[in-house]
Order: sequence, then structure tokens, then C-alpha cells
Amino acid sequence: MPVIDINCDMGESFGSYRIGADETVTKYITSANVACGFHASDPMVMEQTVRICRENGVKVGAHPGYPDLLGFGRRFMDINKAELVNYVIYQVGALSGFLKLFDMPLQHVKLHGALYNHMLSQENLFLEMALEVVKVFGQVIFLTLGTSKTAMLKNSAQELGIKIALEAFPDRAYTDDGELLGREQAGAVIHDTGEIAKRALSMAQERGIKSVNGRWIPMDVHTLCVHGDNMESIAAVMRIHKLLEEQGISIKPLSQII
Amino acid sequence: MPVIDINCDMGESFGSYRIGADETVTKYITSANVACGFHASDPMVMEQTVRICRENGVKVGAHPGYPDLLGFGRRFMDINKAELVNYVIYQVGALSGFLKLFDMPLQHVKLHGALYNHMLSQENLFLEMALEVVKVFGQVIFLTLGTSKTAMLKNSAQELGIKIALEAFPDRAYTDDGELLGREQAGAVIHDTGEIAKRALSMAQERGIKSVNGRWIPMDVHTLCVHGDNMESIAAVMRIHKLLEEQGISIKPLSQII
Amino acid sequence: MPVIDINCDMGESFGSYRIGADETVTKYITSANVACGFHASDPMVMEQTVRICRENGVKVGAHPGYPDLLGFGRRFMDINKAELVNYVIYQVGALSGFLKLFDMPLQHVKLHGALYNHMLSQENLFLEMALEVVKVFGQVIFLTLGTSKTAMLKNSAQELGIKIALEAFPDRAYTDDGELLGREQAGAVIHDTGEIAKRALSMAQERGIKSVNGRWIPMDVHTLCVHGDNMESIAAVMRIHKLLEEQGISIKPLSQII
Amino acid sequence: MPVIDINCDMGESFGSYRIGADETVTKYITSANVACGFHASDPMVMEQTVRICRENGVKVGAHPGYPDLLGFGRRFMDINKAELVNYVIYQVGALSGFLKLFDMPLQHVKLHGALYNHMLSQENLFLEMALEVVKVFGQVIFLTLGTSKTAMLKNSAQELGIKIALEAFPDRAYTDDGELLGREQAGAVIHDTGEIAKRALSMAQERGIKSVNGRWIPMDVHTLCVHGDNMESIAAVMRIHKLLEEQGISIKPLSQII
Repeated sequence: MPVIDINCDMGESFGSYRIGADETVTKYITSANVACGFHASDPMVMEQTVRICRENGVKVGAHPGYPDLLGFGRRFMDINKAELVNYVIYQVGALSGFLKLFDMPLQHVKLHGALYNHMLSQENLFLEMALEVVKVFGQVIFLTLGTSKTAMLKNSAQELGIKIALEAFPDRAYTDDGELLGREQAGAVIHDTGEIAKRALSMAQERGIKSVNGRWIPMDVHTLCVHGDNMESIAAVMRIHKLLEEQGISIKPLSQII
Repeated sequence: MPVIDINCDMGESFGSYRIGADETVTKYITSANVACGFHASDPMVMEQTVRICRENGVKVGAHPGYPDLLGFGRRFMDINKAELVNYVIYQVGALSGFLKLFDMPLQHVKLHGALYNHMLSQENLFLEMALEVVKVFGQVIFLTLGTSKTAMLKNSAQELGIKIALEAFPDRAYTDDGELLGREQAGAVIHDTGEIAKRALSMAQERGIKSVNGRWIPMDVHTLCVHGDNMESIAAVMRIHKLLEEQGISIKPLSQII
Repeated sequence: MPVIDINCDMGESFGSYRIGADETVTKYITSANVACGFHASDPMVMEQTVRICRENGVKVGAHPGYPDLLGFGRRFMDINKAELVNYVIYQVGALSGFLKLFDMPLQHVKLHGALYNHMLSQENLFLEMALEVVKVFGQVIFLTLGTSKTAMLKNSAQELGIKIALEAFPDRAYTDDGELLGREQAGAVIHDTGEIAKRALSMAQERGIKSVNGRWIPMDVHTLCVHGDNMESIAAVMRIHKLLEEQGISIKPLSQII
Repeated sequence: MPVIDINCDMGESFGSYRIGADETVTKYITSANVACGFHASDPMVMEQTVRICRENGVKVGAHPGYPDLLGFGRRFMDINKAELVNYVIYQVGALSGFLKLFDMPLQHVKLHGALYNHMLSQENLFLEMALEVVKVFGQVIFLTLGTSKTAMLKNSAQELGIKIALEAFPDRAYTDDGELLGREQAGAVIHDTGEIAKRALSMAQERGIKSVNGRWIPMDVHTLCVHGDNMESIAAVMRIHKLLEEQGISIKPLSQII
């Protein structure tokens, strides 16, 4: 029986500002990427988010980002290696406090936004950061994008004893090379929830998806990334969850897969 | 043989901004109160501060404050109980990451600035916060001001299983009631380093100090609070350390006293 | 013909975080209190908000608050007079840039949240701040709460040549003394939009409102404060606007009233 | 008689954090680039800095930077054109308030740190930003680096009616192409104050400097950039000022040169 995790960014509110329908989304996902106060979130939001995750049996991971609340962590910032490592330790440490408060383990770490994207081309830096995080927080899973280039990263990580989980995006089109089609291109983001659910099923069941040109892209995938920040995306999450369940896909948190 | 701890605020730099001569001061103290990024400090500073403390055998405590970098945490902010608890967990959690990086325990928690002062009159709130911190971070010591009113707090804490350490200020004048003389009053802050050292000795050896009016104030004191943010205060720290050593006072971290 | 202004807080979004339906609300108000980046807003939001106000013929005022984005300026902060004055000049200056960009005058200044509330009991401080603002930005109007105590403030302001506009809250209950009934008390906030509109009409036409106990409270009122941050409040704004127009009340910006 | 301006970054303190000896430096310069609260400074610092400048007859310019206090604006951030323009308008607007408070004009705008550097290769973006600033704040001077490539920028600016002032760095080595030698290279920064003063004289009097390889680099230069954030740099400023005066160079603010 195929098994897959569903992960979603969560805890992105800040003070009086609300983003996301976390309470709803936690019913349909198995792993939450919880913002840690740099690009989004604050101590109150983190406490509430971890609480909600626990109540709904969702595993929690840290979602560290650039120190850029104004830009929601979506703008590249030219930080150096020491800054990267220390920013991640700070953020994961802060989240760890709330995890201990609710007696929950830290399941994974997934970088956010522009930091996530930048690190896709910085394999060595990514691994050095991961080693430091493991040194401090133990054997957590590092969640990153599954693409044609990922095999190498996975091998390097394995040699270093670092656990990697790969994610795919059911609502995004892929190129023939197995990369995400750039957002600026037509058709890059799929909006039809039925179509998104079918793509999620293909990813989970067939371990692959058809590219924009109809070419079959095989995928090494452990988790599907969904979104919970608007009505449309929440509808898609619900539909994905329903279809996968109907088709006998086992939906489990990363810690039971990796 | 009398034993006493010497504690000092540390890690108060931020980005390109420097405060304190941490490398120098660590040679003369046994406990460091490390800022956690709300009123001062940042991940780079925290990493360096914990490193310096470890190299010099100084025990580390967290020094959480109000989220007010602009005011250096010295301005009262009307936050509620949930905010207080979550702000403290966030900050202590963030510091904990760096402590694990250097394989060091969290020795204590000392609130900073206006938060420290405000909580002196909020015994119940203080204890509730402390209980939450203990739940998350284990049996850490809570460092607060030793005054005539402290006996009650200490008893209440003991009943709850919370460890309290009391501090005295060698460079501050005390009233007949055993309170700190308000900073706005003449003679409230003592600047003569020889005098400061003698007062530190009195506190450590005689467990008491003479008030501004010459009345003897007995003290329940575990640690002397010193400062490292200017030349004068660093000179005082060095002189205190020398005099206490000469007089056979054992200078040890809180964890070996409480 | 009675004349009244309708004012609403605006431009309270921040980065990716949205608050308020500014485009909708501007069609029903005459004065906007625009946040300036301390408790809410940012340069992008300010530019867009001033643009929207201009397109809809709404006059713009500055809405400075405490430097507390995390608390949305709703928590008292113990800042001193120099900080108050400089924080206000900074924020009003920043907004002034965007007003010049769209060739609009600065109509008024209204303090935000906890700063607004705190200053209600600090008449002298309020006037000193206002004098500094006038020195820098010219003869702007200062918008504050009209209560039984306001007469004195208004007189003092007049002697100093400071223009004061007084506001009333159609959705808030008033005590027999003409004060706002505390939010923690039952019935303090009125939710029925029809009722709110009728109260607005009473304030604009009869220049008074019945207290919670049915006592008539005469009001010196130049502007009605409405809200645009949720569906209910926007419905109320639309209903107020409709009823006042139907009843022949002239709705004009403060600059045409004071 | 040759005439030259001397400019220095100023008002870079923040809250309790001090950077720079502004009171001393103002005695030896003619133009101050005042930070505006994004990468450094705050309302209290801005008020004090403008006051000091006025007392010492120093002309004030705005020194806007990236919204990155943690990185002191020295890290590239990938902001878009609208963000750039609005961030600059916000910061210059905020400073303008304090200039009006002291009845001083805004003399110039100089971008800070990584934003300054990034814009050196973004001529069109720079000019678009400058046009918006002029639209809002009137005919201010834009201060940027004088290099071999600047002639083109200056011509383009002239056609658009934008005033450009070019600066040179007496404490930096230049390549044969008239560019600053990269800081990572040996000899890039000159530390001998006598040597720095001689280079300043060469720039002011001969309108050129010898490159690292001894080649003569002619310079179109209106102002010398000096630093005031450490003892060494302040010594250099004093020596430059003294030598230029002795050699009959007229030291005047940009507004009397451009």
C-alpha cells in the first residue's frame, strides 16, 4: 500500500495579523511546517499552532526563514554561512520550547520561501547547515524539493547520516526536466481542485506526474506540499485528502515514512 | 568558608552594534545572563556569547526581556500573562539551541530590565511563569532581587518546587527597609570601585550591608550582580573578584550553591 | 443643515498581512487615519492607502502609534515625552512623503490605540506634542475623543492655537458621565448595524446620545469614528452613510468643518 | 580656488546602542548623511543628529538603506522597484520632519551600504528612484560614487534635471580603471592618516589620484567621503580637514558646489 505524507505551512499569523485557516487544515494534513518568528509568527502564534497540531495528531517541523517579516521571507537576503546556521538554530530552538511545552518531538525542518529556494542550488551549504542542526536537535528530517537534481543531494546526505524527505507540489506544473515550471509562466499554478487532487494521487500512487508537455516524470516523493492560506487552497487540501483515502493511499507523517 | 556567585548581563550586542566587554568580564564572573534577541542580542551574538562563557567556565542563564529593542527592554510594556509566558519560553528556547550546540546546561533564568522590575511586585505571576519554564526546560534556577520582601517569594517558590537565587547589588545603596534606593536619589549608585568591592565583600562575608542611614541590613544573598558595559563597571568587577579571592570567599556558579 | 465627518482607521496592513477593506470603506467616509509603520503599515501600504484615499476624495490624517507591531500598538508602553514627540514627528513625516507624492495635504493627526487612550488623561503632554507637530507640519487638526472632560482640553488648545476635532463612537455605549462604557462590560459594543446607524444619526443631528441608563448625553462632536476591519463593521459604515444622507446630514471632511 | 565638500555617515546609533562620534566629526565635515531608521537610527537619534548638524553648520542629507537593522543594511536584499521607491520616500519623509523641526533644508540623498553598492550597476533604476524623490522632496542632490562609469550616469541625470554629486574615498585604493579596489584585496583600505590626508588633497586639488599600480586616475569629484565610527577614522578626518585648509582648498557643503 502506497504511503505519503501531506505537509503544509502553518503558524504564519503575527500579532493581530491572521494568515491561514490552521484549525481547518490540520484535519487534512500529517506534517506542519511552523514559522518561527523571523519571516512570520510570534510566541503566541507558535504556542497556539503547536497546540492545534497536537490536538489533531499532526507532527510538527520548524519552518525557519530570513529575518524579513516585512517581506514574509520571500526576498533573497545575502546572509553568510554563520548567519544561516545561527539563524536556523535560533528559530528551531525557539520552536523547540513550545514543542516541549506540549511534549511533542521535532519531526523535521523545512526552510521557508526565498531561503528554501536559494538553498536548492547550495547543496554543500545545505548539508553543513543540516549537520549543525542535527548536532543540536538530534536526528530530524530535512524536507526539500524533489527534482531531477535531488538524487545527488540525497546520496550526499545519506553518507553524512542526514535524513532527507522530498516533497512534490500537486498544484504546480513540472517541466520535462522534472523542475517546477516558473511561476511567471502560464499554467505554472494549477487552480482546479479536482485536477490538483488527481495530480496528488498520481504523485502518491504512481510516483510521478506528467510534465507540461505530457512527458512522464518519475518522482522520488515522500510528502505532498499543500497550502492553507486561502479558500481555494483549503478546498484543494480537502479534496486531495479525500481522493487519496478513497484510493487506499496511506497518509502518514514523515516520521513514519523516513 | 562563605560562597557566592557573581552574575553579569552579557550578550547584549546586536548586529553591528556593540555593548559590553564580554570577553574580559567572563574572566571575573561565574554566571552570565545572556540576552535572547528581544530587548538585545541576535543569533550571532548568542552563539559567540555562549562560546565565550564555555571557554571561561562561566555558567549560562537566559535573560529574557520585553520585545523592545528600541528601548533595550527598559520601558514597561503592558503585556498579559499568556504573552509573558510565551515570550519567555520563546527566548529561553532560542538560547537553549546555542547551549546544546556547545553542550552546556541552562543554569538559570533572570528577567531583564523593566520586566525584571515589574515582576518584583507580581509574585503570583512570577511563580506561574516560573512553573511553565520549569515544565519546559527542567529545574532551572530563577534569579531575582533579594529584599526584605523576598522571604515570602522564596517560601512560596519552595512549596512549588521552584529554585530561587537572590542577588544583591554592590554598586547600589540600600534603604533602611532593605530596598534599593531609587536611582533618581543622590548616592543611589556608587562609583568608587574600592567602595563597591568592600560592599561586595560585606554582602558575601557578613551577609549584609549598611543602609544609606547606617543601619545594618541582613541579606539572604546567593549572587552579586555586576555590570560589564563600561570601563568603570569592569574595573569594579575586577576589584570585587580580587578582594573576594584575597579574603577567602569561594566564588562559584549558582548551580553549585542552590 | 447639520454637518459631520466620518473617520476610519486605514492602511493597517503590513507586508503580506492584510487588515481592512480600505477600497470599500473609502466610499463611505470622509477622513482616513493612516497608520505610519510603527504599530501597523509599511511604505508600500502607505503609498497604496494614500492613493486610494485620493481616488475617493477622502482626506488623510496620520495615525501614529507605539513602536509595537507585535502588539498592534494596543499595549501601553512607558515612553517619555521626548520619545513621544520624536516618534510622532517621525511617523507623520514618513506619511507626509506619500501625501506630497499624491499632492495631498495632511488634514489631521489622530493617535492610535493605547497611545490614544493613554493621552486622554495626559492633557498637558498632549498639547505639548501637538505644538511640536504644528511647528513641523503646520496647522493640522488633532482628533481625539469627545467626552465630558473634553471641554477643558478644547479651551486649552484654543488658547494655544491648536485645532481640535472631537469624535464619537456610534457603536459604543456611553455612561451617564458621557464616557465610553468599558469594553469589558456587557453591552459596551453595539453590533446591530441598524442600531449603530440610528446612534450615528442621533450624534450628528441631535448632537447627543442616550447613555446606557437612558440619560441624554449632549455631545460636542465633529466626526464619527467607524471601523473597516470586518464584515460587520463595514456593513455598519454603509448603513450609517446611507441613513445620514437620507436624513439630510451633510457629510464632509474635517478640514471643511473645523 | 579648488572647492570640495566632505561628507560622513551620521546618526547611526539606535536606542541604547552607540555608533560614531557625531559631535566630534561635525566640526570637520560639511555634509552629513543621516540614517533614517531602516538600517540604523531611530527618531531620538535623528532629532539629535539634525540638531548637532545645525549647531555645527553641517548640511543634512538622507541616508536611506535596506530594512535590515540586524545587518546594518550591508546585505543585499532583493527588493523590487516599487519597494525601493517607497522605502526611500518613507525614510526621506521621516527625516524631513526633523529637518523642518530645526528649519533646515534637505540637501541631498545618499543610499546606504548594500543598497548604495547595488544601485551602482542599476543606472536606470537609480534615475527612476531619483525622479520620484525629486517629485516629492524637490531638487535635492543625489550623491553617488565617482568612477570611470559615472560620466554616463551624470549625463543621463542632467537630461532628466537630476543633480548628481560624485564622491571619492581618500582611504580606499583605486584600480587602473578608476574603480575602488575590492575590500578583500590587500591594500584596499589605507590606514595611515597622513597618507589618507595626502590622497584627499590630491583628489581635491589635482582632481585625481594614483591607482594601486601608480597610474594617474583623473576624477570628477565634488565630495570626499570620510568615516566617523572609530578613533582611526576620526583622526583621519581631522587631518584631512587640516591639510585641505592649509593648502587653501575651500571646504563647502554640496549645496554651494552643485
